[in-house]
Amino acid sequence: MAKVLMKGNEAIAEAAIRAGATNYFCYPITPQTEVAEYLAKRMPEVGGVFLQGESELAVANMLFGAASTGRRCFTTSSSPGISLMQEAISYMAGAQLPVVIVNIMRGGPGLGGILPAQSDYFQAVKSGGHGDYRVLVLAPSSIQEAVDLMMHAFHLADKYRNPVMMIGDGMIGQMMEAVEFPEDYQEPELPSSDEWAATGCSDRKPRIIKSLFLDPVGLENNSWLLHGKYKEMIANEVRYEKYKVSARNKILIISYGTMARICQTAIDELEEEGISVGLLRPISLFPFCEDVIYKEVAKKNIKSALVVEMSTAQMHEDVVRAVVGKKEVDFYGRTGGIVPAPEEVKDKIYEMVGKKKTARKSKKKA
Amino acid sequence: MAKVLMKGNEAIAEAAIRAGATNYFCYPITPQTEVAEYLAKRMPEVGGVFLQGESELAVANMLFGAASTGRRCFTTSSSPGISLMQEAISYMAGAQLPVVIVNIMRGGPGLGGILPAQSDYFQAVKSGGHGDYRVLVLAPSSIQEAVDLMMHAFHLADKYRNPVMMIGDGMIGQMMEAVEFPEDYQEPELPSSDEWAATGCSDRKPRIIKSLFLDPVGLENNSWLLHGKYKEMIANEVRYEKYKVSARNKILIISYGTMARICQTAIDELEEEGISVGLLRPISLFPFCEDVIYKEVAKKNIKSALVVEMSTAQMHEDVVRAVVGKKEVDFYGRTGGIVPAPEEVKDKIYEMVGKKKTARKSKKKA
Amino acid sequence: MAKVLMKGNEAIAEAAIRAGATNYFCYPITPQTEVAEYLAKRMPEVGGVFLQGESELAVANMLFGAASTGRRCFTTSSSPGISLMQEAISYMAGAQLPVVIVNIMRGGPGLGGILPAQSDYFQAVKSGGHGDYRVLVLAPSSIQEAVDLMMHAFHLADKYRNPVMMIGDGMIGQMMEAVEFPEDYQEPELPSSDEWAATGCSDRKPRIIKSLFLDPVGLENNSWLLHGKYKEMIANEVRYEKYKVSARNKILIISYGTMARICQTAIDELEEEGISVGLLRPISLFPFCEDVIYKEVAKKNIKSALVVEMSTAQMHEDVVRAVVGKKEVDFYGRTGGIVPAPEEVKDKIYEMVGKKKTARKSKKKA
Amino acid sequence: MAKVLMKGNEAIAEAAIRAGATNYFCYPITPQTEVAEYLAKRMPEVGGVFLQGESELAVANMLFGAASTGRRCFTTSSSPGISLMQEAISYMAGAQLPVVIVNIMRGGPGLGGILPAQSDYFQAVKSGGHGDYRVLVLAPSSIQEAVDLMMHAFHLADKYRNPVMMIGDGMIGQMMEAVEFPEDYQEPELPSSDEWAATGCSDRKPRIIKSLFLDPVGLENNSWLLHGKYKEMIANEVRYEKYKVSARNKILIISYGTMARICQTAIDELEEEGISVGLLRPISLFPFCEDVIYKEVAKKNIKSALVVEMSTAQMHEDVVRAVVGKKEVDFYGRTGGIVPAPEEVKDKIYEMVGKKKTARKSKKKA
Repeated sequence: MAKVLMKGNEAIAEAAIRAGATNYFCYPITPQTEVAEYLAKRMPEVGGVFLQGESELAVANMLFGAASTGRRCFTTSSSPGISLMQEAISYMAGAQLPVVIVNIMRGGPGLGGILPAQSDYFQAVKSGGHGDYRVLVLAPSSIQEAVDLMMHAFHLADKYRNPVMMIGDGMIGQMMEAVEFPEDYQEPELPSSDEWAATGCSDRKPRIIKSLFLDPVGLENNSWLLHGKYKEMIANEVRYEKYKVSARNKILIISYGTMARICQTAIDELEEEGISVGLLRPISLFPFCEDVIYKEVAKKNIKSALVVEMSTAQMHEDVVRAVVGKKEVDFYGRTGGIVPAPEEVKDKIYEMVGKKKTARKSKKKA
Repeated sequence: MAKVLMKGNEAIAEAAIRAGATNYFCYPITPQTEVAEYLAKRMPEVGGVFLQGESELAVANMLFGAASTGRRCFTTSSSPGISLMQEAISYMAGAQLPVVIVNIMRGGPGLGGILPAQSDYFQAVKSGGHGDYRVLVLAPSSIQEAVDLMMHAFHLADKYRNPVMMIGDGMIGQMMEAVEFPEDYQEPELPSSDEWAATGCSDRKPRIIKSLFLDPVGLENNSWLLHGKYKEMIANEVRYEKYKVSARNKILIISYGTMARICQTAIDELEEEGISVGLLRPISLFPFCEDVIYKEVAKKNIKSALVVEMSTAQMHEDVVRAVVGKKEVDFYGRTGGIVPAPEEVKDKIYEMVGKKKTARKSKKKA
Repeated sequence: MAKVLMKGNEAIAEAAIRAGATNYFCYPITPQTEVAEYLAKRMPEVGGVFLQGESELAVANMLFGAASTGRRCFTTSSSPGISLMQEAISYMAGAQLPVVIVNIMRGGPGLGGILPAQSDYFQAVKSGGHGDYRVLVLAPSSIQEAVDLMMHAFHLADKYRNPVMMIGDGMIGQMMEAVEFPEDYQEPELPSSDEWAATGCSDRKPRIIKSLFLDPVGLENNSWLLHGKYKEMIANEVRYEKYKVSARNKILIISYGTMARICQTAIDELEEEGISVGLLRPISLFPFCEDVIYKEVAKKNIKSALVVEMSTAQMHEDVVRAVVGKKEVDFYGRTGGIVPAPEEVKDKIYEMVGKKKTARKSKKKA
Repeated sequence: MAKVLMKGNEAIAEAAIRAGATNYFCYPITPQTEVAEYLAKRMPEVGGVFLQGESELAVANMLFGAASTGRRCFTTSSSPGISLMQEAISYMAGAQLPVVIVNIMRGGPGLGGILPAQSDYFQAVKSGGHGDYRVLVLAPSSIQEAVDLMMHAFHLADKYRNPVMMIGDGMIGQMMEAVEFPEDYQEPELPSSDEWAATGCSDRKPRIIKSLFLDPVGLENNSWLLHGKYKEMIANEVRYEKYKVSARNKILIISYGTMARICQTAIDELEEEGISVGLLRPISLFPFCEDVIYKEVAKKNIKSALVVEMSTAQMHEDVVRAVVGKKEVDFYGRTGGIVPAPEEVKDKIYEMVGKKKTARKSKKKA
């Protein structure tokens, strides 16, 4: 199939359509508004519903309603908008509803700025809402991967009847790349929503889709049932990619999203200078590839690990936990919309391997 | 000074008054509604403002406004209500506003139930909102400690110009205990809010209190400035308590809040049976006493650590990270409003030390 | 075409579909909820949009948006819900938007009750919102007329680019009657919305649909332009029906809606008793048939006029104004959900013509 | 007592304070925002409550709550804001709550403009909300009168336990005049609110303040009870002022608010030209001085009446009704923020008495 040049936000929108999504709810916020723009036109073409709610709160609760009917539904927003949805996400997780939520992250906290960031890692992987729940989190590093993961996200949401979040920084949303859509997308067979969805009942018992369990035993059972699903995700849905990972690596970088691509450039250049660095890129952030990280970092040659994030350090905590003391876990980060250049990553590596830095003035770091 | 018998929710309310809080905003939710009831009467007596907003969103944004004027202000809510405040909390952290937020946790996710839980640990300590920020988190285990920490919370909020969250399970809110208020509360001297608060300006330049920084350099500077404050908190504000911690301990329990008190009962009974178990109770959850945990768990006699929570395992993650592989970190938890009995904790310990359990049927566990 | 037996609310809904309405927005309120129920199923069948908003305010502003695109759109509600829409109705009148609003009136003021009333006459005909505007008001007295007027309402809305309101009491909504829909509804040709609607512009200048005119000359021009349309309505759209109006009438009843049908029963019975009473039933309430009323009441034989309303007297004011002192204008009314019986009307007539009443105890009156 | 120079909006605010108002709720809108500004400072000085709600809907419902406790409470807004309050005003009238609402009218419909108008006459006197209710309406023509009527408004609200509305055009709010406050305001004795207000009950039966009457007999009784109060208002509260009304008048102008003052200038100038014109200025708009108008217009010398309004003709309808055909009732109006000059009024009079107009180009008229 021919490749087409598309902006990330548009590609994500089209991928959802191809995956069979029929209900999209949104409230505009930079830098993801193009998704809504695209779908305002595209959704009616496929007989779907495009609805701009009066707030992110409304949007998130519309998702609850639409998902309850077994329809594939999703929303897209950016950092502050996602914060406003935390209560409803907790409700959807509690009620076991399959929805897809895309967060094209901008710099925070608060209103912050409109440039790219990765500072909502904790919110996504530790679940910003209340109660014992998790959402499955995916982080693409290219437009093509965004397309593939977006389609897969709907599959995972249905498979686990759980919210799936895809997080990308503003670059993923704004940049253009050639992208290919599968000619005829065929997804693995799924248990039918016929067994649980509220589709109107005339010849069966009514179904109640809810997160309210006033009986504590019922509520505890629901929590452990959810917990069981998260364990299954940990067993089956860990995704990551290795780049130039080898026994010769002195440093292992752990980085995700578009930040990882910048690290690749740094790694390529360092390789030419004779410094062997590998990259482990988590693709699923929950579940997290902690066993792989542990195994790779433990390797004899590795001096230490380096986490690179467009934040003041968040995934770093999970890497430290994964490494369980085997090696040091260093950090390099920028935030607030500033994207680290490959040179900054290289400087950090020079520092770590005891090599003199280049003349350039190194920027702020943790 | 004489002790008085008070319900936790009322004691928390009175403590805020004693600490000089003049602005209280709220929206009713079980199990913390008594705080509002108490303050509806009490606030006017001290010339303060009691205001029930039209939603938790409104309440959290009223806090933003009141805190901007340098007034001591706070809210109380419970799990779903706190989720609704995540955006505003991120805004307040970004704008460096001193506020106190109390979460009397109930079982979740979603509407869940109204009985006690500790399942909002992640939301509190990892910050459920977006962006690079943290709130200082305190967790009392008795009514008296709730009073003391509540008063201290206002001090910490002012000291760091940052939101401070106090989390307690529903038991803290509902049970009655004898409690003592300091006769004349004197708090350490503080930098005056005169330097930053928006108090009306006629003879100085206007001040803008905001979380919006469209210039990425400005936004990054703000984020690192906040990050610097969190490092200071880590350096200065770690709080914890030890109970029967000694070189003879075979197991070290890490537990917080009222759950820790139940563990004490289990520990006392196990001591009589010749099984030495210690308790480390984190009082501040962020910053977290990870160095102390590491040190104690590393001790020769300790076979393994046990985290006990009224959740499906959240603080457990931070303990694993703290222990950096020195020992196993086991978990026992109940959730959804079910409070583990001392016998359940003991059974878990028996299992860990290889002793046959008592006849009682052990309940669900992770 | 065959007649079908339908509830008024359902017939109104179907009539809108036949008239080509494609966008329906609503918020549930007794006694008109069946309209929404019917359209939730029916709208998707014709490719239209059914949307339950989060409040009547939202609904009324959604109408503004939908009408701006040239689509036929409408809402239905009941008294308190219509009050909540007053601001938006003023906006739509100011922006010259064609919409249809149905008010199935219940007893008021405030929450009142859920039984039939006609107490929103002033709100409808004097325009409850602010500013110099009017809505065209239609009042059916049977299900068949409700169907015919509903279809005509869309025509009038488009013809004048102005909100059209159809008001009926709860009986119109709830009762069942045989009704006939035109086989193939053909409406008179209309000026195309192509000249003003916001339909997306690539090859023409953008259009701004608004009620804001900061320049007072522009605002005054807009008001006189609207005023001109209301004069045209007065010239062309007055509708009424006469029943047994003749030179022999001693009393002329003026009554509208289902109340007029009850008056017909009273008139029939009085006729048999030798008392000649005529009925003038306004069908359009704005514009109002004041010239006809003046002419009929002026007739030699007429002793006085009687206005009968399910309210404490509202249309009565307009009849007094129309009659300009030619004759007395008496009033009989019930309100709050109580529908006057024919006997009550007859008793009032007896009193007016100086005849002894029947033994029944007459009820409250103004 | 010394006179002070004050802006109308501030004088209205201060008058409310003097009348003992303790609760003010508001949402900002031009041209009445100075009331809120003034009270934000002033209310705390008298121990009262100043609260800016999140919308006009919230404000109007806060009034419901505050009035239920027997406190004197009020709000101020402008045209679109008042439209948003129509539902709540209907609720307050239904529940017999004493509140004062000030509408500083701007040009409409819709957003319109921010300049003075009188185009909300219908909304005020015919009651823009649903159901059988009325509000007492007062219309000052000077700042001093605004002060006096504002204080009287609270008295009337309490006397009738009914909403009282004071309407002024933007000029009343914005212009400055010398004004005198009574040294020690003593108001006539009132029935105590002790008999009905919800003030917390420990030693009496709870009271329910409501507009909901599901029993139609109860609802009808409530409506006729309200109706009885409106009749009392008509009997006791009609207010108007005559200016140069005499047996020599050829024309009687009926005009209210600041528009009436402009008519006085025209009348003075016409008098010098030998044309005798009188002015009847309604001060209460509901109840309306229809008997006085009838009597004055009926006088032998009067050729016709002229209604002058800053609208496209609204009070004109009520004057026509009052005159019951005795004479012609002409109209001159401007709207949208344009205030007619005395010359325009004079031109209209010239036309009516058959005198040649001055050279100036006459403006638009109905």
